Amino acid sequence: MRANYKMQRLFVIDDLAPDIEFEAGQQQSHYLLHVLRLGEGAEILVFNGRDGEWSAAISAKTKRAVRLKVSALQRPQPPLPDLVYCFAPLKQGRLDYLVQKAVEMGAGILQPVITQHTQVAKPSIDRLRANVVEAAEQCGILAVPQVREAEKFDRLLTGWDTERRLIFCDEDASTNNPLAALQAVKEKKLGLLVGPEGGFSDDERKMLRALPFVTAIPLGPRILRADTAAVAALAVMQATVGDW
Amino acid sequence: MRANYKMQRLFVIDDLAPDIEFEAGQQQSHYLLHVLRLGEGAEILVFNGRDGEWSAAISAKTKRAVRLKVSALQRPQPPLPDLVYCFAPLKQGRLDYLVQKAVEMGAGILQPVITQHTQVAKPSIDRLRANVVEAAEQCGILAVPQVREAEKFDRLLTGWDTERRLIFCDEDASTNNPLAALQAVKEKKLGLLVGPEGGFSDDERKMLRALPFVTAIPLGPRILRADTAAVAALAVMQATVGDW
Repeated sequence: MRANYKMQRLFVIDDLAPDIEFEAGQQQSHYLLHVLRLGEGAEILVFNGRDGEWSAAISAKTKRAVRLKVSALQRPQPPLPDLVYCFAPLKQGRLDYLVQKAVEMGAGILQPVITQHTQVAKPSIDRLRANVVEAAEQCGILAVPQVREAEKFDRLLTGWDTERRLIFCDEDASTNNPLAALQAVKEKKLGLLVGPEGGFSDDERKMLRALPFVTAIPLGPRILRADTAAVAALAVMQATVGDW
Repeated sequence: MRANYKMQRLFVIDDLAPDIEFEAGQQQSHYLLHVLRLGEGAEILVFNGRDGEWSAAISAKTKRAVRLKVSALQRPQPPLPDLVYCFAPLKQGRLDYLVQKAVEMGAGILQPVITQHTQVAKPSIDRLRANVVEAAEQCGILAVPQVREAEKFDRLLTGWDTERRLIFCDEDASTNNPLAALQAVKEKKLGLLVGPEGGFSDDERKMLRALPFVTAIPLGPRILRADTAAVAALAVMQATVGDW
């Protein structure tokens, strides 16, 4: 079912079921009271990534806190998309953007990967998570992607589930047609790996190409920035073999 | 030929030919002198969107100004991609992003379109242009897209070259497969129309669907933000029928 875009949607940590009441977090209370200026009885939508989307009303408020009472289920909980999105962390602004876009484009798991040319060795998992939640709230996504701890490139590959096809964006791919390569993919379980600004090192590219569960796709005649490549690859992949 | 990503690349307004010398603009001089800290003899790349890409060296400098002397042609001037990218202006941050991405993804002409739900009625053409130049400098794009004045939705369509197929992203498209719709496109000349946050109005969608030169494509099961939709649509379109 399509999301309702007229109503405010909040991610909450509480369990959701009919008539459950809980207090919204401090920031969320502030937002509801002082930004949206909602009063008692006002309705919003809430979701927690587990129990689907519910309507809820402000049942009580003080100057600082809001209590919400859950009423009816609006949309059932969909499964998490089975797409592992692996990405080299970028500098903060572009990383925020990349994470938001990945959520919109249907990633299920966000896996930061530290490659040789990665500039940001320790991305803030809390900040990645905050961006995931923001994108989910805004875009009506109930299956909130998981954010994993950063992993080194080699360890990611040695630990990879070989039944999951890993697509990677190769500046030097031997074809210029990503559709043919993607349409040849048989696996239902997919991963996507997008490198840092500066791309993969020669060693990394060599290692990727030697692995039987890896498919290289080209990303067109122009060199794309890493955050552009991420969205472009997700779009082409989802439209061809994924969730579109 | 692939762009050289090791050297600094500047967009200039001067004509480019062997041994031509000119003074860099005030901001560019500042950037070369005080940000990059280049001295006499240092080499950079210059392009103007007309004469291809040339190497140039700093031939003289004062505290405030830099003279550049053009030496050898590095890459010939490619033609402008024949893709008219029509977009409803967004609020500034996302608009900057959208324009940069469109340049990276191979737009030839950028046409702001004012629709019923467009929030920004008068986008700054200078700022759009600055974003185009920045993306071209960073991504090695020599065919610098033209930026047109904003046009109203109705006038864009009544004045449209009917031999150019206009693809539009339709939340309610009757198919969920954009590839079939795109692969049926016969025209070589293409346009893409992406609406504002909030989408097209019912009237606008009706008008679009009635036009023989228009093809609607779906953008997947999730509602995308307008700036995400722009990159996703360009990626799917270029990979299927365009310049990839």
